[in-house]
Amino acid sequence: MEFTITQIGIIETPFENLEGMPIQPSGAKKVVGTVVINEEYIQGLKDLEGFSHIILLYYFHKSKGYNLMVTPFLDDQKRGLFSTRAPRRPNSIGLSIVELISIQGNKIRINGIDVLNNTPLVDIKPYVPGFDTKEVTSVGWLKKMQDKAKFLKSDDRFV
Amino acid sequence: MEFTITQIGIIETPFENLEGMPIQPSGAKKVVGTVVINEEYIQGLKDLEGFSHIILLYYFHKSKGYNLMVTPFLDDQKRGLFSTRAPRRPNSIGLSIVELISIQGNKIRINGIDVLNNTPLVDIKPYVPGFDTKEVTSVGWLKKMQDKAKFLKSDDRFV
Repeated sequence: MEFTITQIGIIETPFENLEGMPIQPSGAKKVVGTVVINEEYIQGLKDLEGFSHIILLYYFHKSKGYNLMVTPFLDDQKRGLFSTRAPRRPNSIGLSIVELISIQGNKIRINGIDVLNNTPLVDIKPYVPGFDTKEVTSVGWLKKMQDKAKFLKSDDRFV
Repeated sequence: MEFTITQIGIIETPFENLEGMPIQPSGAKKVVGTVVINEEYIQGLKDLEGFSHIILLYYFHKSKGYNLMVTPFLDDQKRGLFSTRAPRRPNSIGLSIVELISIQGNKIRINGIDVLNNTPLVDIKPYVPGFDTKEVTSVGWLKKMQDKAKFLKSDDRFV
């Protein structure tokens, strides 16, 4: 089964290429960006401003193809693709949870964004702790690596 | 811009129709389901079992069309679509964070699933607190409603 995704807007960020980009929002806390939604969807933004955080789904438009085993930037050995957040996936949809600063018209100012400039937007959802915050007991191979993500920048291995 | 999504597996759950289904995973804590990934992707599951929680992206295959203003099941007035988790969206991709119980071959047993049986799977990502857990300060119109989600079941308004 296949289905078609239509871009509903764009994410504007300071990142023009993958090198030097934070690899996850925890490394991008001070990085402000703008979600520009296509005019036809503006009405759907109503009530969103009440939320402090939102979930962005987007398309990794610079990522082509994929391998089922990848060496994540946070690690030095190959891991199963689905145990990583690498952009090259069978369906290259990315997910970032960002802080909502303000909404004006079709523009949403956000904080903590970690994607390339002009990334195609697929969906916006409210972040709701009761649904989205989990009491995690293990993070697999990331255990020793997680804190590194706050400091490291990506190289180009995910292009 | 448009792009094509290919189903990579299926989510099996006890829910054959939308009526009586929990409306979010917080209401589905004891609901066990199975993610069955297509055989060709099995290798990509390596290392995933180390994570206690995973993010599932899937396609709301029973949802057609959308309105930009919707009355969520948790509320009694219309809200902007992007401030809700309603399945009828411009791109009907759903997101649930579930507990991983075990992996055997191409089958992942999960706990806390809230989707219809045979929902098409789009992606699996590890849930990483450093990336995905946020210190939320406001949840908009959901403020008074959030706890309700633990008890309420959906009706068919999202079909």
